[in-house]
Amino acid sequence: MPAPEIPRVRVGMVGAGFVARLHAEAYRQVHGVKVELSWVTAARPERAAAFATEFGARRTAVDARTIFSDPAVDVVDLCVPNHLHAPLVVEAARAGKHVIVEKPLTGFFGPPATPRAEMRRQALAAVDGVLGACRDAGVRLCYAENWVYAPPIQKARRLLAASGGPILRLVGEESHSGTHAPINKRWETGGGGSLLGKGCHPLGAALYLKADEGRRVRGAPIRPVSVMAEVAQLADTEAFRASAPRYLNTVEGADVEDWGGMLIVFDDGTVAQVSASDAVLGGIRNQLAVYGAKAVVFCNINPNDAVRAYAPDPAVFAGEYITEKIETKAGWTSPQPDEDWMTGYPQEMQDFVESVALGREPLSSGALARDVIAVIYAAYLSAAEGRRVSLGGASA
Amino acid sequence: MPAPEIPRVRVGMVGAGFVARLHAEAYRQVHGVKVELSWVTAARPERAAAFATEFGARRTAVDARTIFSDPAVDVVDLCVPNHLHAPLVVEAARAGKHVIVEKPLTGFFGPPATPRAEMRRQALAAVDGVLGACRDAGVRLCYAENWVYAPPIQKARRLLAASGGPILRLVGEESHSGTHAPINKRWETGGGGSLLGKGCHPLGAALYLKADEGRRVRGAPIRPVSVMAEVAQLADTEAFRASAPRYLNTVEGADVEDWGGMLIVFDDGTVAQVSASDAVLGGIRNQLAVYGAKAVVFCNINPNDAVRAYAPDPAVFAGEYITEKIETKAGWTSPQPDEDWMTGYPQEMQDFVESVALGREPLSSGALARDVIAVIYAAYLSAAEGRRVSLGGASA
Amino acid sequence: MPAPEIPRVRVGMVGAGFVARLHAEAYRQVHGVKVELSWVTAARPERAAAFATEFGARRTAVDARTIFSDPAVDVVDLCVPNHLHAPLVVEAARAGKHVIVEKPLTGFFGPPATPRAEMRRQALAAVDGVLGACRDAGVRLCYAENWVYAPPIQKARRLLAASGGPILRLVGEESHSGTHAPINKRWETGGGGSLLGKGCHPLGAALYLKADEGRRVRGAPIRPVSVMAEVAQLADTEAFRASAPRYLNTVEGADVEDWGGMLIVFDDGTVAQVSASDAVLGGIRNQLAVYGAKAVVFCNINPNDAVRAYAPDPAVFAGEYITEKIETKAGWTSPQPDEDWMTGYPQEMQDFVESVALGREPLSSGALARDVIAVIYAAYLSAAEGRRVSLGGASA
Amino acid sequence: MPAPEIPRVRVGMVGAGFVARLHAEAYRQVHGVKVELSWVTAARPERAAAFATEFGARRTAVDARTIFSDPAVDVVDLCVPNHLHAPLVVEAARAGKHVIVEKPLTGFFGPPATPRAEMRRQALAAVDGVLGACRDAGVRLCYAENWVYAPPIQKARRLLAASGGPILRLVGEESHSGTHAPINKRWETGGGGSLLGKGCHPLGAALYLKADEGRRVRGAPIRPVSVMAEVAQLADTEAFRASAPRYLNTVEGADVEDWGGMLIVFDDGTVAQVSASDAVLGGIRNQLAVYGAKAVVFCNINPNDAVRAYAPDPAVFAGEYITEKIETKAGWTSPQPDEDWMTGYPQEMQDFVESVALGREPLSSGALARDVIAVIYAAYLSAAEGRRVSLGGASA
Repeated sequence: MPAPEIPRVRVGMVGAGFVARLHAEAYRQVHGVKVELSWVTAARPERAAAFATEFGARRTAVDARTIFSDPAVDVVDLCVPNHLHAPLVVEAARAGKHVIVEKPLTGFFGPPATPRAEMRRQALAAVDGVLGACRDAGVRLCYAENWVYAPPIQKARRLLAASGGPILRLVGEESHSGTHAPINKRWETGGGGSLLGKGCHPLGAALYLKADEGRRVRGAPIRPVSVMAEVAQLADTEAFRASAPRYLNTVEGADVEDWGGMLIVFDDGTVAQVSASDAVLGGIRNQLAVYGAKAVVFCNINPNDAVRAYAPDPAVFAGEYITEKIETKAGWTSPQPDEDWMTGYPQEMQDFVESVALGREPLSSGALARDVIAVIYAAYLSAAEGRRVSLGGASA
Repeated sequence: MPAPEIPRVRVGMVGAGFVARLHAEAYRQVHGVKVELSWVTAARPERAAAFATEFGARRTAVDARTIFSDPAVDVVDLCVPNHLHAPLVVEAARAGKHVIVEKPLTGFFGPPATPRAEMRRQALAAVDGVLGACRDAGVRLCYAENWVYAPPIQKARRLLAASGGPILRLVGEESHSGTHAPINKRWETGGGGSLLGKGCHPLGAALYLKADEGRRVRGAPIRPVSVMAEVAQLADTEAFRASAPRYLNTVEGADVEDWGGMLIVFDDGTVAQVSASDAVLGGIRNQLAVYGAKAVVFCNINPNDAVRAYAPDPAVFAGEYITEKIETKAGWTSPQPDEDWMTGYPQEMQDFVESVALGREPLSSGALARDVIAVIYAAYLSAAEGRRVSLGGASA
Repeated sequence: MPAPEIPRVRVGMVGAGFVARLHAEAYRQVHGVKVELSWVTAARPERAAAFATEFGARRTAVDARTIFSDPAVDVVDLCVPNHLHAPLVVEAARAGKHVIVEKPLTGFFGPPATPRAEMRRQALAAVDGVLGACRDAGVRLCYAENWVYAPPIQKARRLLAASGGPILRLVGEESHSGTHAPINKRWETGGGGSLLGKGCHPLGAALYLKADEGRRVRGAPIRPVSVMAEVAQLADTEAFRASAPRYLNTVEGADVEDWGGMLIVFDDGTVAQVSASDAVLGGIRNQLAVYGAKAVVFCNINPNDAVRAYAPDPAVFAGEYITEKIETKAGWTSPQPDEDWMTGYPQEMQDFVESVALGREPLSSGALARDVIAVIYAAYLSAAEGRRVSLGGASA
Repeated sequence: MPAPEIPRVRVGMVGAGFVARLHAEAYRQVHGVKVELSWVTAARPERAAAFATEFGARRTAVDARTIFSDPAVDVVDLCVPNHLHAPLVVEAARAGKHVIVEKPLTGFFGPPATPRAEMRRQALAAVDGVLGACRDAGVRLCYAENWVYAPPIQKARRLLAASGGPILRLVGEESHSGTHAPINKRWETGGGGSLLGKGCHPLGAALYLKADEGRRVRGAPIRPVSVMAEVAQLADTEAFRASAPRYLNTVEGADVEDWGGMLIVFDDGTVAQVSASDAVLGGIRNQLAVYGAKAVVFCNINPNDAVRAYAPDPAVFAGEYITEKIETKAGWTSPQPDEDWMTGYPQEMQDFVESVALGREPLSSGALARDVIAVIYAAYLSAAEGRRVSLGGASA
């Protein structure tokens, strides 16, 4: 029996920053498909060069278009800020490349005073432009929602399927202590605040699980039909400003929410409660509870207790990674033995690379990306107008 | 130094059922005040007699008014269904008795088709009637919200006070697998569903903690100003009905919600997310997370891991209490070593008895009871009309 | 029906230090029996006076004998260092007083170079002297092993009894980061190190549970028959001394072990693994795992997750108690909402006071105290001679 | 920059059973090295054929020697019963093959009445024969102790190294409810009971961590110097036999221990407590606690709470894997999202394949395998003779 030919996928990386490195690390762990980093681009050539050296990318460029026009590239991996996602996906698709793009797929990027209804209109138009371009070009859109691939979420999916009963309610959250990076704290560049940047993860997982249930029991996804939401700028309250010292990471001039809560109703009458916050101390929280008619599953992506560690003062673990966004390394913590794995990055890249190599849909695709945007911008509208917003008309 | 005189409080119990027994057990543990059960009443004389024998009550009666007219009664303890609370408190107060009354203080009891605005109007009128009667009579109203006294909640209060920073966000839940008792599943007798019967607990604790913070930092309670909410009958969905076997406790003809979620905004711009459900398997969940600007505290009233037990089949622990509302005693469970203590019953009765003996306000009083009713009926209105409801006008 | 007469117990406290205060707090919570603090004694009169004022003791004295000779004292509560236990119990018993005495009941107090066989002989002789004196005088000996009363241990007892199967194996530990008090770090005053001072707790609970099982299934306690043990002075190793900064609490000139592990075999062929350490960072650990043929129960006296708290720096919770012996209040901790209750102090005093008032044996009595001493000094002998030590001859 | 040549490793599998499949799954996930399954052998040709089809092995054989003589094989992977390890490693090594061999490396296989000193002598002779053969042949011995590769253990190693302080004490356990397979329950084929079959894992991890610390701080491993141990046949007690129904997996005629506890002293005066049991209900427990002078790390390989699930009856999750050796799928469980990954199998095979491809020592090598055998057979001797056993002379 001859050894099977190992398929090959040639990747063009756009961007050489934090996320690009995360993806490159994940590509290294891909098995059964040979991944070649054909290109890496960065606005600053020295960054591209350093990245190429570290991860073995073959060539570097400054302009992403250089990659799009190279016939020896199979898939383009866009590791760029949110507001650049949509135009670059469209260009890459038109050039016939499959596309990997980070979450959120796109959104509204403009002045904070823009009415939420208009924000929502523009965000959905952008999504539809992206999806249409990919459809027209016949390329795959790989939506990098890593929670879909996180082992606890996939285990929940299998357990719920085994139980045979419907999911009645989901409760999900992503939160931590915020960021000092202004790019994610302004509508112009971030497209929203906590709800968009963090809430997209538990929301994506919740929508994925209900869609999966629908396909299993009725041959079509169960879809969200309405949302009620509140948002707040908790770090912009008088009480917070009066309190010192401050432990949350805040940005002067932030104009987006640092907390949002959504109450979502699905077309089968079941519900989800999704929240996101940049005002939570004690390390990142990535959690989803799934309450079924026959089973309950709690997914603790982090923290979880696979490792529990204690240091009497913060200097003790100074040299070792504990977990994202924790304010002190002192006391008891839940260090991640392999945060990338538990949050689904290698599994995600394995699926994306296989989807390109084998010509099948990835688990996390454009349809999910669209629903996420539809729900979140409806939530912004809901919070602004103080009313339930139907997804009916707006949802594809 | 002579021994101090131990004060005495004479209690008249109205009702001899489950809750009355819970209270009587708690009275037994009161120290520093001598509690005498002067009376117990029950519609069925044999139940009153049995109760009197077991707990040492001195006399029995059929009609609560017999107690109200006995000058040798200091405080009346009303352990009766929700819809009887308001009229009995008013009568007892007018007779000059201090009153202990279970949660919820009162509500709307009538046809389910009643518009939510009308429900809310009637519920608030009933509360105000009760509070007015107590005020006019100069008697104390002890509102039996045991979460206020639960050790984890009191510890959270002290830790947050020590931290000196504001509470930015509370996330609370009470849930379990429902009940087969129709009385709590119909508007006419229950006054609402999960939100009222279960949600009042985490809501009460959240309102208590923010009020306490306000009194500490500005000399007046921080109050809720608005609520957005959704409710659902998850066990009334097609998906649930199609699923067999069924593990949730349901009642034919239930007309109240079995899930509700509330997004509450306080007058200082901070928020609370409170939910309640009768559609959760795996045992009762009584949990409150408190996210402060300087500290985080999680209160796990139950489950918690003070005891963790495993039985390979449900028969093994057949003779021993595990926890409320669990469907199987098999597998891993978190049995409560002393559920009454952890949920605050003895501490609550200690405070109530002391408040009567020493002439001071109990921690859980009529003001808290009123806010709970105001928020929950505003939530019903919010869910029905799909809009944010202001508590401004309606809140005292 | 007349109110029953409440029995009264008059307590004479010997000592006014930390433990005496703990007991006095617990007496306050006793219900159903009236506890009067008749006397408190302390070598320094001003301490006795301060204690009397705070806890309402009627009279003060310098010499414990003053109490022993007062006919108006029912029970003497000995809150004094370990090496004073035996002589004072004997005197009190001869004076006809019931006695409450802290753990360990007694031991060997002398030069560290004494052969372990001689230590064991003297310790057992002291125990037998105490037990004989109480027996001869017809007074009760209340052995203050609070673990017997800790709610998780009592719940384990009930769950195991419900299961009907034998306990096959117990694994228990008490540990923390040591002490700066020389009294507990020297043979002359402490009578041993970690094994005696801390190990007595999990050992006491393990022996209690097996004895209880025996009484239930065969009408007589199941008894330990042999022990193998190691002890070490971990903080006296070169590796520890070379390591700075140091976080463990150590005492210059300590001559006792700061770690001990015991492997105990019972007369029914089942086993226990008990360890104790003064070299554990991160707060006190009081844990017992019970592996039965039909059930498993884990008792987490502390830490447990009834409350979980986070502080970004140690100053945040500076004013509030977290847990015993933690090096930093920063990071995640498991603050005890009521450490006395969870570790069994009020329940213990309730039982002791009732045992005196009602004339019955306390749950934790002299028989348990003797077995604890017999096992621990056999363990010292085992570790010194590197061999299994039989409890056969030495055990009563 | 041309793509680097991917190295290739050709594996000959000996055995086609459960462990072989585990390894084959792990080989699939290897990245950066191309793994070819050149051969698979099985006594029954149809099993080899089925395995070859499923995992893509090129050729099948009945006799392992067929593989040993094929020059196109780089490494032989021995997935055979314990008593066959030593002779096959020696043969493979002499044929010039690198070898992967499961734990325990070897042992004593003979009549249970053999004196423990003789058992120990034979076991060490077998180990030394294996190590000598590999040394003489210049081939690598990859000792498949997966705990060395389990992510929590590796994280503990990094955290302890970061802390800079010594490990003072390790407490480890592997336990579950036993097996119905007679092969592991008899000395003739198993070479021992729980201590050997399960205890080798936490022991291996503990020895690895202390050896690593020694290499880091003094350039040479810290080694164990003595052991005291007890063993028992808990399921062979009268109490257990009298108890019905029985939930532990037992084998009629088992002659090995189903529990063992070891107290180990290292050459730096620090200690380890390692236990293993086949008499634990509730699912497999793979845990190691590491108490350092500056830090504490708990490794919960399983159970951990990355996923927590609840099923009201065992049928609900019937179709889905929960965890090894759990008696019921009802109640709360901690299902492993990816048990292979958390217990280190893919990471182990990655290291082994790289060690062969790149010519370097694997993390888990023959030196560790020898120490494990030396400690465990000394423990058997200790338990039999009731005395501390020195590893001095016997340890290499």
